[in-house]
Amino acid sequence: MKLATLRLQGTTVAVRVDDERTATVIGGYRDLSALLAEPDWKSIAEAANGAQATGMTVDLSSADYAPVVPRPGKVICVGLNYASHIAEMGRDKPEYPTLFAKFAESLAGPYDDVVIPAYAAGALDWEAELAVIIGKRARQVSEDTASEYIAGYSVVNDYTMRDYQFRSIQWDQGKWFEKATGFGPVLDTDYVPGTRIEARLDGELMQSATTDDLVFEPARLVHYVSQIVTLQPGDVICTGTAGGVGHARKPARYIQDGETIEITVEGIGSVRNKTIIK
Amino acid sequence: MKLATLRLQGTTVAVRVDDERTATVIGGYRDLSALLAEPDWKSIAEAANGAQATGMTVDLSSADYAPVVPRPGKVICVGLNYASHIAEMGRDKPEYPTLFAKFAESLAGPYDDVVIPAYAAGALDWEAELAVIIGKRARQVSEDTASEYIAGYSVVNDYTMRDYQFRSIQWDQGKWFEKATGFGPVLDTDYVPGTRIEARLDGELMQSATTDDLVFEPARLVHYVSQIVTLQPGDVICTGTAGGVGHARKPARYIQDGETIEITVEGIGSVRNKTIIK
Repeated sequence: MKLATLRLQGTTVAVRVDDERTATVIGGYRDLSALLAEPDWKSIAEAANGAQATGMTVDLSSADYAPVVPRPGKVICVGLNYASHIAEMGRDKPEYPTLFAKFAESLAGPYDDVVIPAYAAGALDWEAELAVIIGKRARQVSEDTASEYIAGYSVVNDYTMRDYQFRSIQWDQGKWFEKATGFGPVLDTDYVPGTRIEARLDGELMQSATTDDLVFEPARLVHYVSQIVTLQPGDVICTGTAGGVGHARKPARYIQDGETIEITVEGIGSVRNKTIIK
Repeated sequence: MKLATLRLQGTTVAVRVDDERTATVIGGYRDLSALLAEPDWKSIAEAANGAQATGMTVDLSSADYAPVVPRPGKVICVGLNYASHIAEMGRDKPEYPTLFAKFAESLAGPYDDVVIPAYAAGALDWEAELAVIIGKRARQVSEDTASEYIAGYSVVNDYTMRDYQFRSIQWDQGKWFEKATGFGPVLDTDYVPGTRIEARLDGELMQSATTDDLVFEPARLVHYVSQIVTLQPGDVICTGTAGGVGHARKPARYIQDGETIEITVEGIGSVRNKTIIK
């Protein structure tokens, strides 16, 4: 099942995506953040139908997608998590995940333009990532059971200002820029480990990997983070990126005004954000 | 004016602290996070009185304090921000602030016991910090006007698991532990730059500095962060710590089971949390 948050008539609505053209509004929930707060969110989503008083169908061809989960309490990001990328960077395979954070304000809809003021546009970069969305409160859960706490998967561009990232020894500030991190278009409850993930800059392939190259798989990340802090429904874990980011290229290649980054996770979908520098 | 969030009759309430013994409930707001979302929060707090239908007074001698702002959307922390501490660590004075993040779940009430499971208790440390609480939406605000966006100031112990902090090159995971970061007891709308900040371990003085040693003052931090991401009412900036943390001592000194850390900011108050390892 695929779910999304759409902007509609000046507000947002949670929808179930029925096919490439049609979605059904899940009445009573203004977005997936609100829906996922319900313990039985999955059966609520399955039961929604256009004939209900609260239900209606939406033509997806003209839909305006919001960040798929627009108000996560936590957005936890993982660095250095693809073995091939770690190897090409000359690092050892890590014993523990490298974690940092983004904020809800950092998220953009999957097809939104990303507007960056000139002062922050010196070294804009992409990072193709699989996102994990939490569906159930998770505190100190075992690795064996951790996947039960995952609502589904999505696509995220961990958009990065490399100059801000390296202004200090902590990366966070390079990761927080307002409405820059394209996220969506859907939450897919299904996911096939080993699926392909790619980034394209104006159509040119920049990153291509499969998620079986992840050092820390989704379930292991949920287990690990839940040992530290409670994961809540709607929280997001961005699982890290593979080789091929702009900063690591020789010469480095940063996103220029008017260029579009497309991140695709096979079977889930794509985010496609044009950067506008002004 | 001093404000707080108290646990009362199974819920929480926002209060104005009238004197050492008495607070007045600010009716209709379940905590300071809710109150600060009101543009006129200050006049609402000033107008609250015990004679109102919604008002009541509380005896503070038996009060149970929650984290002063329990549900911040963002908790932004600053590292390496006291000149004396930077000098003693042999580092250069930084050009930009070092930023990382905590989460709302990491916060504890100012007098709560901090319960840490044995697996996370290997290197527990304190960091005495002045907290800045945002009172008005701030996006790309100038340094000159930035203090207008600050609701007030508080006291925070940036409780740190040093072993987790140094598991990777990013500190965040050492800073996130559930309900460990004592925060409060009050939001004080007044603040005197250069005020004294101290940490005591079971009464023994461990850190003592004045906030005029801050490299990046509160207004400059608000300006700087607002260039990256919008600060919202109730967001928190923890401004960094001075020399004297346990990890930097020779030999290192970590918090043991049953020990209490007290952090005091002169004129605002103290947080005092006992650590229970189990």
